[in-house]
Amino acid sequence: MVYPTPVFVVGTFDKAGRPNVMTASWGGICCSQPPCVAVSLRKATYTYGNILERKAFTISIPSEAFVREADYFGLVSGRSTDKFAATKLTPVKSDLVDAPYVKEFPLIVECRLVQAIELGLHTLFVGEVLDVKAEEDVLAGAGLLDIDKVKPLAFTPDTEAYYGIGRRIGQAFSIGRDI
Amino acid sequence: MVYPTPVFVVGTFDKAGRPNVMTASWGGICCSQPPCVAVSLRKATYTYGNILERKAFTISIPSEAFVREADYFGLVSGRSTDKFAATKLTPVKSDLVDAPYVKEFPLIVECRLVQAIELGLHTLFVGEVLDVKAEEDVLAGAGLLDIDKVKPLAFTPDTEAYYGIGRRIGQAFSIGRDI
Repeated sequence: MVYPTPVFVVGTFDKAGRPNVMTASWGGICCSQPPCVAVSLRKATYTYGNILERKAFTISIPSEAFVREADYFGLVSGRSTDKFAATKLTPVKSDLVDAPYVKEFPLIVECRLVQAIELGLHTLFVGEVLDVKAEEDVLAGAGLLDIDKVKPLAFTPDTEAYYGIGRRIGQAFSIGRDI
Repeated sequence: MVYPTPVFVVGTFDKAGRPNVMTASWGGICCSQPPCVAVSLRKATYTYGNILERKAFTISIPSEAFVREADYFGLVSGRSTDKFAATKLTPVKSDLVDAPYVKEFPLIVECRLVQAIELGLHTLFVGEVLDVKAEEDVLAGAGLLDIDKVKPLAFTPDTEAYYGIGRRIGQAFSIGRDI
C-alpha cells in the first residue's frame, strides 16, 4: 500500500506471435545504469508466460484520454480476446525487442528481460530499457517530457481508481535546499 | 523513464542505532501476497548499508506539505547529518521491524527485508510489508485512504520535479467495461 502507483500497459507476443497487452500497476523504475524497469505480474496472466517465452516486453504509458482502453486491458485475458482489435488500437512490433507496443500511447519503453524473481502471488520482472519512444507532441524540448502533455495516470491500490497528475509543486534537488 | 514515479522516504537505523531517512523514487508495490514493496538504492547511500545490516526499512509517504523536507532528505547524507534534527521531524521506532518512520507523514509502510537484488548502479530491495499505518484524518472510511487527503507526491524522472495528484478520472475494473 503505497501511493501513487503507475498505470503500465505491458505489451508481449504470445507463442503464435499474436500481440497482447495487459495493464499493471505494480512496477516502476528499478535501476539507472543499466536503465531498468520492474513490473510484477501474477502467474495466471497470459502475459506472464509470454514474457518468459519471448524474454521481452514493452511498457506503453496511456494518457488520460485512453483510460477506458487501459482499464479494458486489465479486465479481459489475451488468451481469449484480441485486445487490440477490440479497442481499435494499433500494435507495433518493436525493432529492438521481441514485443509489441501501443502506437497511440504517448510514451513507450522497450525492454529486454533480465530477471524474473518469484515473490509469491506476483513475479517481479526486471527489464533492461533498450529504448524510450515519446510522441513529438509530449516533448518539452531538449528530449525532456512535458508531464502536462503526457497526462499519465496514477492508480490508488486500495480504492482502485485512476487519477490524473496535478499541479507542479517544485523542483527536486532544489526546493529543500534552504533547510 | 516511466511516469509517474512515487516519492518514498526510506527510514533505517544505522549501526549505532541512529535513525536516518532518504528519499527514493525508484520503487513501488511488487507483490500482493505476501504484500511486498520494492525500492532501489545506490550502494553509495548510507541507507544501503543500513538496510543490509538491519534487514528492515520503512517507507514514509510525504504529503505535499512536506515537499521541502522530502527533497532535503535526498540532498544530504545521513553519514554526516541528522536529518530528523535538521527538519524537526520525529523519528518513531517501528514496533514490528528494526527501522524508524517519520511520525508527521500521513502514510507509513513497515518492511522486513526479504531480497536484495543487485542490478547495476542500483540494488533493488524487496521488503515484506508487515504493517501499514495511516493518520486518521487521511482515511475515507472502511480502512480506505482518501488520496485527496494523503496528497502524495509524484516525481518526474527526467525533469526532476514534484507534482501533486490531480482529478479522479474513473473507477478501475469498471470504466473500461463498455468496450
